[in-house]
Amino acid sequence: MRERLLAAEKVTGIQWRDGTLHLLDQRLLPSEERWLACDDVGQVVEAIRTMVVRGAPAIGISAAYGLVLALRDRLAEGEWEEAIEEDFLDLAESRPTAANLFGALNRMRDRLQRLRPDEDILAAMEAEALAIHESDREANLTMAQYGIDVIRRHQGNEQTVLTHGNAGALASGGFGTALGVIRAAYLEGMVERVYAGETRPWLQGSRLTAWELAQEGIPVTLCADSAMAHLMKVKGITWVVVGADCIAANGDVAAKIGTYQLAVAAMHHGVRFMVVAPSTSIDLNLATGDDIPLEERDADELLDVAGTRVAADVDVFNSVFDVTPADLVDVIVTEKGVVERPDTAKIAQLMCRKRLH
Amino acid sequence: MRERLLAAEKVTGIQWRDGTLHLLDQRLLPSEERWLACDDVGQVVEAIRTMVVRGAPAIGISAAYGLVLALRDRLAEGEWEEAIEEDFLDLAESRPTAANLFGALNRMRDRLQRLRPDEDILAAMEAEALAIHESDREANLTMAQYGIDVIRRHQGNEQTVLTHGNAGALASGGFGTALGVIRAAYLEGMVERVYAGETRPWLQGSRLTAWELAQEGIPVTLCADSAMAHLMKVKGITWVVVGADCIAANGDVAAKIGTYQLAVAAMHHGVRFMVVAPSTSIDLNLATGDDIPLEERDADELLDVAGTRVAADVDVFNSVFDVTPADLVDVIVTEKGVVERPDTAKIAQLMCRKRLH
Repeated sequence: MRERLLAAEKVTGIQWRDGTLHLLDQRLLPSEERWLACDDVGQVVEAIRTMVVRGAPAIGISAAYGLVLALRDRLAEGEWEEAIEEDFLDLAESRPTAANLFGALNRMRDRLQRLRPDEDILAAMEAEALAIHESDREANLTMAQYGIDVIRRHQGNEQTVLTHGNAGALASGGFGTALGVIRAAYLEGMVERVYAGETRPWLQGSRLTAWELAQEGIPVTLCADSAMAHLMKVKGITWVVVGADCIAANGDVAAKIGTYQLAVAAMHHGVRFMVVAPSTSIDLNLATGDDIPLEERDADELLDVAGTRVAADVDVFNSVFDVTPADLVDVIVTEKGVVERPDTAKIAQLMCRKRLH
Repeated sequence: MRERLLAAEKVTGIQWRDGTLHLLDQRLLPSEERWLACDDVGQVVEAIRTMVVRGAPAIGISAAYGLVLALRDRLAEGEWEEAIEEDFLDLAESRPTAANLFGALNRMRDRLQRLRPDEDILAAMEAEALAIHESDREANLTMAQYGIDVIRRHQGNEQTVLTHGNAGALASGGFGTALGVIRAAYLEGMVERVYAGETRPWLQGSRLTAWELAQEGIPVTLCADSAMAHLMKVKGITWVVVGADCIAANGDVAAKIGTYQLAVAAMHHGVRFMVVAPSTSIDLNLATGDDIPLEERDADELLDVAGTRVAADVDVFNSVFDVTPADLVDVIVTEKGVVERPDTAKIAQLMCRKRLH
């Protein structure tokens, strides 16, 4: 499976080349594939904030590279050890919900604190950022295998899968989380067609997920976010497979707005609900979903579409994430292993594990 | 209440003046208020098909006026009695789901068959179309009163209401069905704020409902369709109030895509679910929701927004209505009276009633 996924890989959104971070501008997809080159941390902060790059794992990876860029400038300035704290803070404040962002920054900080006196600071930190990127890619390959094992164990080989948002290659270091599982399931002949919600307001489904799947020749049908329950009733959906931006210690899942509604509809229809996320999306310091900060974004995201004002000028509620309580989640797939019917004890046990293989 | 609603009336979308049907072009709202004058039935068919006018009751009323225009031309041609059947058919085929369309055409046909030999045909049929329009307006005033009685009886005076699509003045002969109840509840001080889903793909919520409510100074907050369940959890929604396009004999409700998903979410959260529709939306010939034809519209409605292609070029599922089974509906409000926990027997009993007052 690993080899087949590697062979099928067509989409990537983050490249680190010669000390520059290149980000595929996800705001312009699918009509234009334009790469943005970031040479300093300010550009990276802005790219995360304005969603040039989005998706919790991709945000974490970008922040790690951003810290390398920051360090390069701070080292050139001389006194860097206090100054770099500002950069940590700027990066941490670029988006509020993605656990992976804080996880990646913490990992960079740990490495910084473990520097040996004789080490080349910049080279060591660049290597750490590359390792964060590579371990996310590896995690996705592992999760793809675990995910299809779960599907096969539960319901055999003829699945109709529904996803929401974009938990694909563009949202991660490669392959994707939820879309990684879906890709693998397609390659294994277990899935014939994928239904994708358009995912207002930012249209991650229409613009990114549909584009990613189309690039790889995986049949995908786009639908309105409001059509999900109807689809479950009339199209025989068997699995909902989605990503996550933050998972609390009890297994509550913060994810793209609409995920909770999907979980409620899935429960009503007896459709199984899978969350696929690397363990870096799990934050044991957050006891439950109530503790996860949920980002609200500008009203314009809802009032405008494609730069055109479509709505009357009224108040807007634009929470871009919601929380799905653990008891609506059938299974959480991570690279450390799989948790069915998640709860605090099972999540704690998972996080103590080494990688299974 | 009747007087207060009449005084608050600000929005209308259908006007019959001097033998011409004037339709407010709902495709251009809220950015432009342009009226389209229809002088022949072909223009009316096209206006319904392309959604210049939409909303089940408004479609029915427009079709009745369209039949008058058809008859005027057929009478001028001479042999009209067979020829008019083509016009009935064209009008009936303009949209597939709205029960009111077929109801209005049937009422026009009945009148045609009951013409006295001495009657002016055109004058009689014009009077019938005007009566259809007026009875829809009256029905909405009656339903507004019944609706707030139900809300008051069940939960008292502090309600947070959520609606979807546009079941307002623009969707009807005046005041609106669901929005009629919501307007009345606001005027009575029972509702402080209305949450409205944007209602993709056609954005009836953003463009029409938000505009209607803003015109009357009723506080409205717009949200993504995917945010409904999250809203129920965090904003203490107490009622979902929606319209219908067709109600089957057993109380199953065909309505704007997303209504079913809302009903599932409402059930999960213990939020009460009210459907407001004139009895002309009820078709006793359809035993259950499975018998209701659900319109699917062009893929472009989902792939494009405001004339801009936003999505990758993939397959689309664009069913613009869904069916909410009767067992998810707390109450159906019609001008003939109110049915709680609808079923076949209660719907049959309702349809035999004369207006209560």
